[in-house]
Amino acid sequence: MKIYEGYKYVDGGVCAAAGFRANGINCGLNPDKNKPDICIIVSDTPCRSAAVYTQNKVKGAPIIVTKRHLEKTGGISRAVIANSKNANTCNADGEEKAERMCGLLASKLGIPADEVIVASTGVIGQILNIKPIEDNMDRLFAGLSSTGNESAARAIMTTDTVKKEVAVEFEINGRICHVGGMAKGSGMIHPNMATTLNFITTDITIAQKQLQSALSEITKITYNCLSVDKDTSTNDMVCVLANGKAGTEEITGGQEYEIFKKALYIVMSEMTKMLAKDGEGATKMIECSCMSAPSQDTAIIVAKSVVCSPLFKCAVFGEDANWGRILCAVGYAPAEFDINKVDVDIASKNGSVSVCRGGFGVEFSEDEAKKVLEADEIYVNIRLNQGECEAKAWGCDLTYDYVKINGDYRS
Amino acid sequence: MKIYEGYKYVDGGVCAAAGFRANGINCGLNPDKNKPDICIIVSDTPCRSAAVYTQNKVKGAPIIVTKRHLEKTGGISRAVIANSKNANTCNADGEEKAERMCGLLASKLGIPADEVIVASTGVIGQILNIKPIEDNMDRLFAGLSSTGNESAARAIMTTDTVKKEVAVEFEINGRICHVGGMAKGSGMIHPNMATTLNFITTDITIAQKQLQSALSEITKITYNCLSVDKDTSTNDMVCVLANGKAGTEEITGGQEYEIFKKALYIVMSEMTKMLAKDGEGATKMIECSCMSAPSQDTAIIVAKSVVCSPLFKCAVFGEDANWGRILCAVGYAPAEFDINKVDVDIASKNGSVSVCRGGFGVEFSEDEAKKVLEADEIYVNIRLNQGECEAKAWGCDLTYDYVKINGDYRS
Repeated sequence: MKIYEGYKYVDGGVCAAAGFRANGINCGLNPDKNKPDICIIVSDTPCRSAAVYTQNKVKGAPIIVTKRHLEKTGGISRAVIANSKNANTCNADGEEKAERMCGLLASKLGIPADEVIVASTGVIGQILNIKPIEDNMDRLFAGLSSTGNESAARAIMTTDTVKKEVAVEFEINGRICHVGGMAKGSGMIHPNMATTLNFITTDITIAQKQLQSALSEITKITYNCLSVDKDTSTNDMVCVLANGKAGTEEITGGQEYEIFKKALYIVMSEMTKMLAKDGEGATKMIECSCMSAPSQDTAIIVAKSVVCSPLFKCAVFGEDANWGRILCAVGYAPAEFDINKVDVDIASKNGSVSVCRGGFGVEFSEDEAKKVLEADEIYVNIRLNQGECEAKAWGCDLTYDYVKINGDYRS
Repeated sequence: MKIYEGYKYVDGGVCAAAGFRANGINCGLNPDKNKPDICIIVSDTPCRSAAVYTQNKVKGAPIIVTKRHLEKTGGISRAVIANSKNANTCNADGEEKAERMCGLLASKLGIPADEVIVASTGVIGQILNIKPIEDNMDRLFAGLSSTGNESAARAIMTTDTVKKEVAVEFEINGRICHVGGMAKGSGMIHPNMATTLNFITTDITIAQKQLQSALSEITKITYNCLSVDKDTSTNDMVCVLANGKAGTEEITGGQEYEIFKKALYIVMSEMTKMLAKDGEGATKMIECSCMSAPSQDTAIIVAKSVVCSPLFKCAVFGEDANWGRILCAVGYAPAEFDINKVDVDIASKNGSVSVCRGGFGVEFSEDEAKKVLEADEIYVNIRLNQGECEAKAWGCDLTYDYVKINGDYRS
């Protein structure tokens, strides 16, 4: 992971921030008893909360319920409950079941159900069996602990091969603060003003409005710049809970706000890269930087277009320096710019190769290019040479295993 | 193929229309001597011509040259020259080489180079070796014949596994007329106001303006509704040449125009389906119909969104009735409609299964669904239930072979 001055990576994930406990167990939604399938995250005290959601018109019932809850409470929540294996989406009884999940946890905490955030991930369009959740709520709640972050992170995994957790420690006016998170991937990832399932906790004190602004701003340049397969999920959500346990003054702006936003950026961008790296069937992570663009939006659009190209993704899998496909994807990116100024380099820990200058190909050594592409993290660097803005996007190669995993996902 | 009253499928492809000859040979661009790599189509007399082009900012040199030629001549052309194996794109000398190809054919015909249409397909960003074309022009020209359509159709194939030709015969005011065409696929297909390489000939007489209108209109509902992999090529083009040899009055509108447009629709929609069926690595063709939509544009957007979903494409490959992915793709289609009215059926020659009513899943037999999905042509029928408009889109499944073909395309 990249080193950021003033920020220290720490263990603990969603439990790194003071006053948060978590737990994940197998309740039986997943027949594999070794695989946790439900988790909860609980704060000792009420939290200011913010969230962003999928823009898909088909919204999972948990999305609808969480949105309603946060609107009702004015952004106050105490806890999260999330399950894998079933997305609880496109079912006539979906909202009722999602409310029931919140109610079960709320009654253990003695709080209104509105103060619970709910999320589900898994197969769309199959009725959620609520009984295993009801039957195991006591055990799930009893297991809450300040080291339960790992089991919680594992409980939201679907086709993910590794759990995703990041946490950082930093100081605001002498107080030790934390931002930590957990995320799940790894297919149906093409966020649009939202993202895959992501839960973030922090012990700073911050006004709800600023918390929402920071989350929306950082989502735009992290999760929203991630694509595994161009499919925008029905259940995407990022939420952040701030419980104030670090004892900072309430942040409403200024330098403190910037320090927090940077922490959020570190956590969310690291998790974005983890998600890209663990994309379904992926063998290589692709990071595309678009520089000297006329606007940040143009840079984002161009960088995303490259990491989304199925043909380029296949070429990366095959370690074939078919750079024409990069320029092709730059060319069909829906933004206004002069293609004849564009430079392209392909790089990795093994070196860097210039493949295009001013929109035309330049000679390069295929051997060197092949060596560059043998690495497991591939960097595509694009300079539009017509502005000062830049952005990054993340993706992965397209492999046999992606097809295999998704040819028979439901069984 | 579907039967259309008043239209008869005939052999002959681009040579079905009177006064057109064609030829395709191997000139050495392709090391496999059995594979034609260059072709020409020539009309005995000047043709009214119309074309639509890729909207990619990166435009192959042949696209730029063809556009310039048709602008100069006011839409008059006599011949087409096209090669495979090299796209002649992103090369500093690209336009010069494309002009040279036109010049070589023009001098054989004794016409200005501006009356030649040029197209190339293959690897992007590699210098086109013009010498094999120069050296073989005499032989290519000498071989022109009214049965050369097949060798011409084979010469534009890249990863295509079969040649694509369609021709129909019909009557206008007692005159026998023809529209015939040839096309190539089979990856990097996601047209946007244009398409993959397509050459269409006809012996009707028609004003240039009406010819262009008909081509643009039919392109919108055929090639532009086709996607193999969401990658929009740099070299896409459809052109149509009308030489008037059938002896009809000049068509400027009215019933005659509608009869011609229908013929164009038959040829272009049949070739669209052929392209979908022969998509890179495809084992199954997917046709998605969107009905009772508030507008034709909405119907097109929804139908295309479904055939473009990588996750649904994988599910079709795996013969898994994961219909949630269909609704997911309907949900993220960028159009305005009420998702809660949507019905979805999956059908094939083996039967039909209702999977979704009013946005919610309905119970269905997995065995029946599996049987439906075992066919090699899968039909997804979507009713939005909020209007009178409809459209179709075509695609194919996503398979191991797509990844294999594109992991090492250049070698």
